[in-house]
Amino acid sequence: MSPRDDRAIDEHIARLIAPEVRALSAYSVADAAGLIKLDAMENPYPWPAELKAEWIERLRAVDVNRYPDPKAGRLKDRLRDALDVPACADLLLGNGSDELIQLLILAIGGSGSVVFAPDPSFAMYALVTRATGRRFESVALDESDFSLCIDGTLEAIARHRPALTFIAYPNNPTGNLFDVAHVEAILEASPGVVVVDEAYAPFAEKSFFPQLGERPNLLVLRTVSKLGLAGLRLGVLAGAPAWINELDKLRLPYNLNVLSQVSAELALEHYALFQAQTRQIVRDRDTLYARLEGMNSIEVWPSSANFLLMRTAPGTGSTTVAALRERGVLVKDVGGASPLLRDCVRVTVGRPEENAAFVAALEEIIAA
Amino acid sequence: MSPRDDRAIDEHIARLIAPEVRALSAYSVADAAGLIKLDAMENPYPWPAELKAEWIERLRAVDVNRYPDPKAGRLKDRLRDALDVPACADLLLGNGSDELIQLLILAIGGSGSVVFAPDPSFAMYALVTRATGRRFESVALDESDFSLCIDGTLEAIARHRPALTFIAYPNNPTGNLFDVAHVEAILEASPGVVVVDEAYAPFAEKSFFPQLGERPNLLVLRTVSKLGLAGLRLGVLAGAPAWINELDKLRLPYNLNVLSQVSAELALEHYALFQAQTRQIVRDRDTLYARLEGMNSIEVWPSSANFLLMRTAPGTGSTTVAALRERGVLVKDVGGASPLLRDCVRVTVGRPEENAAFVAALEEIIAA
Repeated sequence: MSPRDDRAIDEHIARLIAPEVRALSAYSVADAAGLIKLDAMENPYPWPAELKAEWIERLRAVDVNRYPDPKAGRLKDRLRDALDVPACADLLLGNGSDELIQLLILAIGGSGSVVFAPDPSFAMYALVTRATGRRFESVALDESDFSLCIDGTLEAIARHRPALTFIAYPNNPTGNLFDVAHVEAILEASPGVVVVDEAYAPFAEKSFFPQLGERPNLLVLRTVSKLGLAGLRLGVLAGAPAWINELDKLRLPYNLNVLSQVSAELALEHYALFQAQTRQIVRDRDTLYARLEGMNSIEVWPSSANFLLMRTAPGTGSTTVAALRERGVLVKDVGGASPLLRDCVRVTVGRPEENAAFVAALEEIIAA
Repeated sequence: MSPRDDRAIDEHIARLIAPEVRALSAYSVADAAGLIKLDAMENPYPWPAELKAEWIERLRAVDVNRYPDPKAGRLKDRLRDALDVPACADLLLGNGSDELIQLLILAIGGSGSVVFAPDPSFAMYALVTRATGRRFESVALDESDFSLCIDGTLEAIARHRPALTFIAYPNNPTGNLFDVAHVEAILEASPGVVVVDEAYAPFAEKSFFPQLGERPNLLVLRTVSKLGLAGLRLGVLAGAPAWINELDKLRLPYNLNVLSQVSAELALEHYALFQAQTRQIVRDRDTLYARLEGMNSIEVWPSSANFLLMRTAPGTGSTTVAALRERGVLVKDVGGASPLLRDCVRVTVGRPEENAAFVAALEEIIAA
């Protein structure tokens, strides 16, 4: 391209891409090659050899040249069984919950509408809201324990009348479960849809599934990523059939590729294996929590998820993350994500030896 | 749910889901079990045993518990080599071209903007445009040979000033390549972006890739679905780095699952195999064309894709599709897709014996 052509492209972009999109940076993901990866809430256990062998046989039978089952009927049946989806609910599947979050924001309320979530919470709610030209509103959580400030939240809902509210349960990146009565009050007060995002449900064993039959504005979002299937990209939305029927119209017809479908079906037939891993991770989380709680200059919060939120000494959050990386441990610096999170770091619970390496590195950094 | 709750859900839906979405039906896909599948432009050849063996070894090494490479760097390199992407262009990958069509419509022009495409063309352009609250405009193709009516098209572009124009090249479901001078005139006259959708490029051996360095408002869309990888869901957008950089901000970070990435990488390393299949399909298309052209009461159009558009005797399009289905052959009834397509049927080119079975069934139906 000549410089003149480059200017022509810039002129087109300035005219055709919304300022709020131009202002975004693409979501950045750290290069993890060779590092202990405690930054992305992945299950740290690869599939055992017997499961891999069975998987390989299933894949061998797949015809990659054919389009996938657009309805993913068999996979939905497996999900119903494994996740104990109430009979009154239908399911909508997406490429990770990310695709379902985008679909919900596009489908509900229209272009001028408001999307609401507490702050801090999962970054994609605000990112996708802004990228699709909607307005994002939030109310800060309690700064000591990250519980919902329910009076302020209900006031904000009355003022902004959000078409869509996201409540992460447990919340990310804080790890806590909100008070059920608070979430019920939000459901009661909301003129719009409330999506309870239970991405971390396997570690919490709490769910709003039982309320699905009772609340006309409740939808529940799940994912199999944290369970141990992050590579497959599979998110699940559960709700009343009338809701799912409308939302399904905006789903791209072949959104779930055949390999993820077949692999998730098999994994869900072996759900007990992933449940055992989940229980192990919960035990290791509690061990790690105890270690961090005992450390000088580290504040750590109780968690119902597969990660812990901790705070380093004032002004040392980002340098601690960098120093951990130098020692081969990747964790997530969330200090910039919210005013409530200054010097905060999110650590995924890994295998026991990975957690120990993280603790040793952190002790070394603090002692330095 | 009680009847009262059902009414409450309906009331929420009426208030929160846009009328144009409620008016949609979900994209329906026929059940194909046990049928000769000539309805979806799939490559009819499963992978040979040696390729499957190599594939299985690659998959065995995948850790499904980890998130996929969000940048898909290795896959992009393979695509550059195989598709001969010009050096001046960057790539953006999606779950099939469907996801990229949605991303383009969301990114370019904003919520009140116009999306333009000729009629008839690929159904997703209009579907996604309407589902995302944009306005869709079109101008009919020439009814005898489906060429662009260029004067009317340029007039419509001047009047509607579309932010985004889709030109399928070859066009679906008509199979023809538009006149290059016509597409150039559209590029020249368009105030917005023109996406040349080359989904069927492998069968046409024509491309606007060479123009990418010369046209500031040109983007080129490809897919590996028609090549033989429909099950993987992989679409590719090529364009100037400045364009790709902006569009990448709206891409969901982990949109491509790990299994599709690894599988497509391997397939593209064996690109010559798929090229040979493509050449076979082109030969069989020409054989099938000659058979259909020789049949009384069937009109058929020349095609540069892996399908043929044909017209049955007046008033018999849908009944012919149903009668073919009864005889075990699935083809696509496109008669309702456009006023220009009355009694038209789209037939994907299958294996020689599948094409012969289709011709035999069609002859039987016509003779009945």
